[in-house]
Amino acid sequence: MVAQVAAPTGRARSSTTTYSMSNVEDTRIVVVMVGLPARGKSLIAQKVVRYLGWLSIRAKTFNVGSYRRQDTPQPTADFFDTSNKDGERMRHAAAEAAVKDMLKWFKSDGGIVAILDATNSTKARRRWVRQRCDANGIETLYVESKCDSEETIMANIMEVKTTSPDYTGQDPEAAALDFRNRIRNYEKVYETIDEDEKDLTYVKLIDVGKQVIINQIQDYLQSRVVYYLMNLHIRPRSIWLSRHGESEFNLSGQIGGDANISDRGELYARALPDLVTSSVGDDRQLTIWTSTLKRTIQTARFLHASPKGYDKLEWKALDELDSGVCDGLTYQEIADQYPEDFKARDDDKHNYRYRGGESYRDVVIRLEPIIMELERSENIIIVTHQAVLRCIYAYYMNVPQEKSPWMEVPLHTLIKLTPRAYSTEEQRFKANIPAVSTFRSKGSTAKHQ
Amino acid sequence: MVAQVAAPTGRARSSTTTYSMSNVEDTRIVVVMVGLPARGKSLIAQKVVRYLGWLSIRAKTFNVGSYRRQDTPQPTADFFDTSNKDGERMRHAAAEAAVKDMLKWFKSDGGIVAILDATNSTKARRRWVRQRCDANGIETLYVESKCDSEETIMANIMEVKTTSPDYTGQDPEAAALDFRNRIRNYEKVYETIDEDEKDLTYVKLIDVGKQVIINQIQDYLQSRVVYYLMNLHIRPRSIWLSRHGESEFNLSGQIGGDANISDRGELYARALPDLVTSSVGDDRQLTIWTSTLKRTIQTARFLHASPKGYDKLEWKALDELDSGVCDGLTYQEIADQYPEDFKARDDDKHNYRYRGGESYRDVVIRLEPIIMELERSENIIIVTHQAVLRCIYAYYMNVPQEKSPWMEVPLHTLIKLTPRAYSTEEQRFKANIPAVSTFRSKGSTAKHQ
Repeated sequence: MVAQVAAPTGRARSSTTTYSMSNVEDTRIVVVMVGLPARGKSLIAQKVVRYLGWLSIRAKTFNVGSYRRQDTPQPTADFFDTSNKDGERMRHAAAEAAVKDMLKWFKSDGGIVAILDATNSTKARRRWVRQRCDANGIETLYVESKCDSEETIMANIMEVKTTSPDYTGQDPEAAALDFRNRIRNYEKVYETIDEDEKDLTYVKLIDVGKQVIINQIQDYLQSRVVYYLMNLHIRPRSIWLSRHGESEFNLSGQIGGDANISDRGELYARALPDLVTSSVGDDRQLTIWTSTLKRTIQTARFLHASPKGYDKLEWKALDELDSGVCDGLTYQEIADQYPEDFKARDDDKHNYRYRGGESYRDVVIRLEPIIMELERSENIIIVTHQAVLRCIYAYYMNVPQEKSPWMEVPLHTLIKLTPRAYSTEEQRFKANIPAVSTFRSKGSTAKHQ
Repeated sequence: MVAQVAAPTGRARSSTTTYSMSNVEDTRIVVVMVGLPARGKSLIAQKVVRYLGWLSIRAKTFNVGSYRRQDTPQPTADFFDTSNKDGERMRHAAAEAAVKDMLKWFKSDGGIVAILDATNSTKARRRWVRQRCDANGIETLYVESKCDSEETIMANIMEVKTTSPDYTGQDPEAAALDFRNRIRNYEKVYETIDEDEKDLTYVKLIDVGKQVIINQIQDYLQSRVVYYLMNLHIRPRSIWLSRHGESEFNLSGQIGGDANISDRGELYARALPDLVTSSVGDDRQLTIWTSTLKRTIQTARFLHASPKGYDKLEWKALDELDSGVCDGLTYQEIADQYPEDFKARDDDKHNYRYRGGESYRDVVIRLEPIIMELERSENIIIVTHQAVLRCIYAYYMNVPQEKSPWMEVPLHTLIKLTPRAYSTEEQRFKANIPAVSTFRSKGSTAKHQ
């Protein structure tokens, strides 16, 4: 058996797949979250779904709590007491409903990875999920978040009492108290994954990545999800994104190449250190990442040489989308010389691959190590190119693929992204330095808009 | 702190590094192997060194056994009994000598990752290694191989009794018996890594990857080594490598491009299924990997359509080295139009990056996920391009970087690589179909040699 193409026995024909994380056609996985309330399960689930979606893998979270809320919108802690038979029946019914919808999603919507977001806190419950999945030929990967750090738990309780629909409109202090009691009720029956369950494929995340236990990983997709989970951290940080300063090619309307920055681009490069300082707000140490192309290195050079002395890395993976035979042409020239290509790209900009070059989808694949490094890192400023920046931005802001290649990302603008528990905060800082617009709307061959 | 650039406090200047796994300038790690004899420690050590070396990271194994052999070339099992004071003193002296040389290597030879290959079977010994490394500002990563599978242990004993210098010239059965006794002596004092050592950075590999426990991973390089270890397996398998059939560009002496295969290339494509079948020797299922370029897809198409019905994946990462502005030129044209580049490439072919294109070093970096997938996979046949094939071959055959870009890899030849415990076996199967030679020796601009 080969990891990526887990061919079920008896499949009649061999298949061809262009490689991406999505060549997992025959693999379907339920990631079963396990853990007490306030252990960051929903946050982890949300990050995994976003990461997989970005890699073109159909992924979706099924949150048992929201099924339960259909019948019991605002239960008190007693509802979660195991001696409360009514509560238990209703909670089981909610799990049933979630699993049923999930299986339907695999069957009718081409789902690849579902996340079953619930406490799944007993061996019996986990076994039950496994049986339901096995019966449908779907793999299970259990992800237990185990955390005894009072600080992390408290941070999660604060988050829940202010954001959970279970407590909407309630007094925050009462909500926090009730939530603590709910946790205690779960603690009474909670069983961590142990030796008895060594036939399961599982990952135990202890204190968010301090220790990770990985058991019986079966295939490529599982190993990717696990590697992603291994690299997560929850220390606060921000990521800054900037395009290079206006380039000579931007002025002439040519794409690709390795041009120098223009005089106005130079002004932006000189303005960047102050722009960054004012957006940071404290004296955090940043690291600068650029591509290997002149225009990003030139743009970052004053920041690199500034008194702060930020370290710098040049990544080939941050180079602009390779436009192959169209490199150095204007959009008008492309429309004239390669009219079919020009149209094909407009029709499906995410998947269109320039002859001898790349598609946005290709760029996402080569950016995957960058995203993994960003997950491991703290404060990073990335000076890169329009298409690459769109892809990184799409990851953090959850922008759908069909939209991200059409996003407007103006020159001479610094974007600051700050990941929060359930979303990413965005701020834009515009340098007051004019530049051409390199945004091109569908069908247009205009040099500048 | 950012993972890749762990800047020591007080460093005067910021630094620039072109990204590769080797931008770990300030990180130095000792990978401390832990485990009873016959648990595959030396094999793991050897693979890690090979992998890191391939990624341009200076790595070296320090085997305590070979230091011990300088004084005690062929000890019996009694030597390893802890009640044997003389034996214990000499074994400790050997560990001292190995650690001393290792620290010297870091200091004078620019070492990045050392592997301390020994049993390191007690907490006291591990603590001692840690103290020595801490005192020299070197990180420690403990890798314990724990294995109770009688089959794996037996396979390792068989390997040792026939290959270890400890038993050279001895009766194999007596050697196996003595070695079993040696293991028993180690078992008496062996302490697995446990809760008491949770301040250590460690990986426990249980039954070669069935379960993996990862504790306190600190930085980028550690996380890469750990991911590599996670993906290893020891199931027997082979890897087949072939270049595409002769292409139109091979005939005209042009490099790069996306040409069709020639008539003779077509003959090779038709011959490939039989060539593969005869080299496989049994009815193992293979998976075909190609690049996204026409010449590899055309070459693999009969193999893909053969009655065996092998699955196929197309990888962008397997595309030929991008020759940038020189794409489509002949070597003579490059020498005429870019004489400085032509010379620079000959002077340092591994590091020379074509303008707007790639170097061999760049190709190695983009092949890293391919190597990781190959480690996870079983039987794979890769149909790819000269430079890419050289890089993959160099990984398995441990070819130094300065040599690998100059290796001769003829067209119309199938290479079968079979990884063994301490080396990789190679077989070549030549299709009897003529093709031009695309090998170019240093300085030459000849179309074909």
